[in-house]
Amino acid sequence: MKVGIYGYGNLGRGIECAVKNSEDMELVAVFTRRDPSTVKIQTAGVTVASANDVEKFADKIDVMIICGGSATDLPEMTPALAKHFNVIDSFDTHARIPEHFENVNTAAKSSAHIALISAGWDPGMFSLNRLYANAILPNGNDYTFWGKGVSQGHSDAIRRVKGVKNGKQYTIPVDSALASVRAGENPDLTTRQKHTRECFVVAEEGADKAAIEKEIKEMPNYFSDYDTTVHFISEEELQKNHSGIPHGGFVFRTGTTGWNNENKHVIEYSLKLDSNPEFTASVIVAYARAINRLHQEGNIGCRTVFDIAPAYLSPLSDEELRAHML
Amino acid sequence: MKVGIYGYGNLGRGIECAVKNSEDMELVAVFTRRDPSTVKIQTAGVTVASANDVEKFADKIDVMIICGGSATDLPEMTPALAKHFNVIDSFDTHARIPEHFENVNTAAKSSAHIALISAGWDPGMFSLNRLYANAILPNGNDYTFWGKGVSQGHSDAIRRVKGVKNGKQYTIPVDSALASVRAGENPDLTTRQKHTRECFVVAEEGADKAAIEKEIKEMPNYFSDYDTTVHFISEEELQKNHSGIPHGGFVFRTGTTGWNNENKHVIEYSLKLDSNPEFTASVIVAYARAINRLHQEGNIGCRTVFDIAPAYLSPLSDEELRAHML
Repeated sequence: MKVGIYGYGNLGRGIECAVKNSEDMELVAVFTRRDPSTVKIQTAGVTVASANDVEKFADKIDVMIICGGSATDLPEMTPALAKHFNVIDSFDTHARIPEHFENVNTAAKSSAHIALISAGWDPGMFSLNRLYANAILPNGNDYTFWGKGVSQGHSDAIRRVKGVKNGKQYTIPVDSALASVRAGENPDLTTRQKHTRECFVVAEEGADKAAIEKEIKEMPNYFSDYDTTVHFISEEELQKNHSGIPHGGFVFRTGTTGWNNENKHVIEYSLKLDSNPEFTASVIVAYARAINRLHQEGNIGCRTVFDIAPAYLSPLSDEELRAHML
Repeated sequence: MKVGIYGYGNLGRGIECAVKNSEDMELVAVFTRRDPSTVKIQTAGVTVASANDVEKFADKIDVMIICGGSATDLPEMTPALAKHFNVIDSFDTHARIPEHFENVNTAAKSSAHIALISAGWDPGMFSLNRLYANAILPNGNDYTFWGKGVSQGHSDAIRRVKGVKNGKQYTIPVDSALASVRAGENPDLTTRQKHTRECFVVAEEGADKAAIEKEIKEMPNYFSDYDTTVHFISEEELQKNHSGIPHGGFVFRTGTTGWNNENKHVIEYSLKLDSNPEFTASVIVAYARAINRLHQEGNIGCRTVFDIAPAYLSPLSDEELRAHML
């Protein structure tokens, strides 16, 4: 199976690693909007090409993995590339998924390609766990917690504050809230009760640290609804201790069964990830395998993780899966 | 969607509850090998019929849910009933799944029905989590722990010991083993290091308790490879404190990503169930919905949970799922 990577940031580099780890896949080319001669990739002998030349590879790539941002890149890129390739993306603006789906579906159908949008872990594996658990326990409550992990959006927000040179923000689930949900207590939790936010900030020389802390803590949407801690550290400390991109989280469904709903059940799914982009990439690559197979079977149009039978993700045959994994 | 229940023990009663909780389903009949007049069910107005008369209902039932034992019932029942109905079972003898699959597949195809075997949580939801996590993290290790929960097989083994009037056995995962796996330490764990076994035993009057305890602890296959605790209690205590059928467990996959496998990830799925048969029944009923839809689309033959796209399990439409659950 021949794979292309469109966009070479953190996610694209993660895809490159995941393809290397997949014996049934081969990386054909990486496409970039930068000058290709300035982009150095890790896989020996693989072409780095200009995004402008992508259509020339239409016959050379089974699945194009699109690694762009959800705000402005993917809404344009995925439908455009679906006219020439089978495509997969990790579009994660939950509210705009229906619109993105329609656009990609129309483009993919018009050119007899298959596409899958919103692969990753949320949306992605967390969504799958919400769906399975809701189907199994129709009487119940859903809880999703994120972290401990780096939120890029919140880190960006810190860095826009006057006097801030650099910064990193961790989203942290509140232990007592996790414990209450895990115990089947079905708590009603406010935003503040579910997560705390911890910020590591490098201030510019002579900056007013008290003012920075106040501005961060009172920032609407990002921090004002949370208990937020701000630590001032040096650039060296930030680079040494906070250069990773860990993340993770928890999806719970708690529900009841029985003639009078007398029995309680707790379903919990959790992820603890050293590298958010590399794990996301690993999910995407498994789904790339799936849509390549579905396309070989003649399927076209857009899909999501909800539409893919699990067996399509595995390099093992149906017989091997039944014998060894069921 | 019209449902039949074939066999009315703990699992059959759980199915009855789960069908009641599913607005899109209607229970048509319960079939029993006992004298139907002696079987009282909970759903008002529903027929209890003899298993001998099941074929008369061939046109009245969309999916027959077969609630028999895996040792001798299901290998006979599921292929036989697949000749007349769409069927689903919870066959859980892992080693014999390939053989059972072939038998059911042949029967279902010959009569243009659809079947799904081995629905539940292990095999079932645990298997799905093993498959997904292996596809995502090809470099890694799998761990499955069961409990805390009642093992019917081990409870039966206790009750066969001379001098034992009644008994219940709990399988309990070892906390330190769970913690090590969760921390990504990839331990090599022996049988003894993974689970302990706790037995609550009601001795017959005058029985030799020391002999009973010794026989239990040294019983090959069941107890000798485990650290086993034996508590002698009264029948009243057993009825009062140990009449439930709780169970659950944990499925982990720990693995690495990155160019040099430098990043670790932990995927954990866990269940904490007040009622093992009612939760198993809830999984089966969701998959019954799925195979009914697949049959309406013209599909025939045998399936497992690996072959079913998740969206088929939900009563929600694809549009609703994308808008609200992705």
